[in-house]
Amino acid sequence: MEKKRYTLAILVDNVSGVLSQIAHLFARKGFNIEAFSAGPIEKEGVTRITVEVLAETDAQINLLCNQLRKLFPVHSVKVLAPANTLRRELSLIKVKAETPEARNEIIQICNIFRASILDVAPDSLILAVIGEEDKAQAIQSLMEKHGILEIDRTGIVALERGKTTLHDDTKVRSEFNYGKNVR
Amino acid sequence: MEKKRYTLAILVDNVSGVLSQIAHLFARKGFNIEAFSAGPIEKEGVTRITVEVLAETDAQINLLCNQLRKLFPVHSVKVLAPANTLRRELSLIKVKAETPEARNEIIQICNIFRASILDVAPDSLILAVIGEEDKAQAIQSLMEKHGILEIDRTGIVALERGKTTLHDDTKVRSEFNYGKNVR
Repeated sequence: MEKKRYTLAILVDNVSGVLSQIAHLFARKGFNIEAFSAGPIEKEGVTRITVEVLAETDAQINLLCNQLRKLFPVHSVKVLAPANTLRRELSLIKVKAETPEARNEIIQICNIFRASILDVAPDSLILAVIGEEDKAQAIQSLMEKHGILEIDRTGIVALERGKTTLHDDTKVRSEFNYGKNVR
Repeated sequence: MEKKRYTLAILVDNVSGVLSQIAHLFARKGFNIEAFSAGPIEKEGVTRITVEVLAETDAQINLLCNQLRKLFPVHSVKVLAPANTLRRELSLIKVKAETPEARNEIIQICNIFRASILDVAPDSLILAVIGEEDKAQAIQSLMEKHGILEIDRTGIVALERGKTTLHDDTKVRSEFNYGKNVR
């Protein structure tokens, strides 16, 4: 059976060990993580995690979500509907550019992909490109002939289009129990 | 003693449970993770992880790096020198825009920050901005007056300027032991 790609958005308290707890649950349930990113949001002390995993059925993912919701630091978990979701990642690519011709060609490709050049060294360039994975993949394969020195990709971040947010989905907890003082 | 921010770049085999193993080591040693991102690189089966942590002394970080190097799936670990490193993150911000005036103002701010608008709904916009944390922070605080609905930030990705790469630092392993067949 072919596996489908799922994008999960998770809000958690930024307490020590929370990323390890989340990543461990995925591993324990046998999911291999395809992409993982975590960053602060507009609310102090809350981190949003975006994870992409492959699974065969929706039921497997629903089970996983229910288990994630049971973890104490987790506020909310949502599987983002592909049709209704903006997914982007940032890739930094360091590529060899030892001749003026190579540099020109790389700059041309950057213009087409609307990638930006962040750094120029005597024999290399650093590019930044935003897109879904296929865009990163496409520019990467074009750069291969020049020689890719290093790549760093963020993993996917994703937001649903329109006004619905992850906060709508937050599990109900009394303010008292939720405070950091009781931990 | 004031804590300093360190950026660690780690290359690992993309085997099941590896993210959990890495995140767990940070937690066990008492480091709170400020930002975490993981994505594939140009070599098949290898993932690059960028982690930002706070620590008081370089010695603490060196100790942590040595412990990371001992984990089997880890190829290389490097603390990136701040003066010599390009750090960027991608933020997606969904902001309320219920009137044409609000929308105009948001578009103006986007132009100044060179942020791009990824989606327009009848009463909200989704912006994408690349930069160091301060840039994301600045645009975020300007958007607060309109009402931020949702934010998703990738966490930092970082590359050293010039020709040095993380691959230079890879720990020596015989090709034979390294192959996936022996695991």
